[in-house]
Amino acid sequence: MTKIEINPSIAPFPKPTALLGSLVEGIPNFMDIVWLNRVNRSPNIWVVSVNKKHHTMKGIQETGWFSLNFPNTSLVEKTDYCGLVSGRDVDKSELFQVFYDPEENVPLIKECPVCVSCAVTQYVELPDHFVVFGEVKHVYSEEQFLTDGALDSEKMDLIIFTRPGPIGNYWSLGKKIGKAWSIGKNVSE
Amino acid sequence: MTKIEINPSIAPFPKPTALLGSLVEGIPNFMDIVWLNRVNRSPNIWVVSVNKKHHTMKGIQETGWFSLNFPNTSLVEKTDYCGLVSGRDVDKSELFQVFYDPEENVPLIKECPVCVSCAVTQYVELPDHFVVFGEVKHVYSEEQFLTDGALDSEKMDLIIFTRPGPIGNYWSLGKKIGKAWSIGKNVSE
Repeated sequence: MTKIEINPSIAPFPKPTALLGSLVEGIPNFMDIVWLNRVNRSPNIWVVSVNKKHHTMKGIQETGWFSLNFPNTSLVEKTDYCGLVSGRDVDKSELFQVFYDPEENVPLIKECPVCVSCAVTQYVELPDHFVVFGEVKHVYSEEQFLTDGALDSEKMDLIIFTRPGPIGNYWSLGKKIGKAWSIGKNVSE
Repeated sequence: MTKIEINPSIAPFPKPTALLGSLVEGIPNFMDIVWLNRVNRSPNIWVVSVNKKHHTMKGIQETGWFSLNFPNTSLVEKTDYCGLVSGRDVDKSELFQVFYDPEENVPLIKECPVCVSCAVTQYVELPDHFVVFGEVKHVYSEEQFLTDGALDSEKMDLIIFTRPGPIGNYWSLGKKIGKAWSIGKNVSE
């Protein structure tokens, strides 16, 4: 276990992979995003961190809303594609079947097992990114992804992202290795 | 693909699992954390979101530093244990082999494949959590986890967390399903 100091330009991993949706000048737009997480319990607030230059930022600032759509492994090519081309150059509105929540301010993706709409609560400006805070307003899924009324990780088959070095990869979920707030009870104090 | 609205109290997943380290009154303390991510490219800024009541917050505010230590699947019991007991009640300083970066303000865990030390840059106060922003100062790993000088996801065997419903579980990484900024080129425009 000899530790060595390595290049510090890394990000945490493994990470969730999502498609960040926004309406830019009324047109549904989606970008591949992995810099996201939850930050508050009640209300349920999430953050996404978006490069200031991204077309998506324009839509979020225009509408005050964003969506996070979690694709399953069958959507890996389209997901990656959304990170390769900008909505500034390519109209991505026909790539997926789009639906809306009652507020109709942000596009959601029907093909994704879980879709979340968020209303912006605040921005934190950093040197190259905006950290956008949003309160979760609606979460959508399908009966086929639920077990006893709750989302089921194995049924959803979501995509995981890693980029520990210069190369990024998408992965599937592996084996269950333990139950949280439970398996730790085996540690003797 | 009939979408139904479900309970909105969810968090994104699959997520990374880390041990958040701090020195609380000079004693190394670690908590299990999954609400973390990167938020800026240059400088490399990460956020962790920590419940205001957690013992860890005291240490972060005292020192202005925190560490993120990414355990592998063999450490799943000790990782979960750190989320079951508070440093207020239990001394967790002997649970792992601790080492320090040159600044010596935050404990790092020798058993973890990757350890990151961060200096706090700002706090955002939310109703029940503090979002702590920190600039990555040092990253440590070992030769055995590198391939061509870069971290290797398969060699590290890190833990993934999901909590789509009331039950949280830990998982291993599954199969590689595609290369990022590459596999999307198969999508015809």
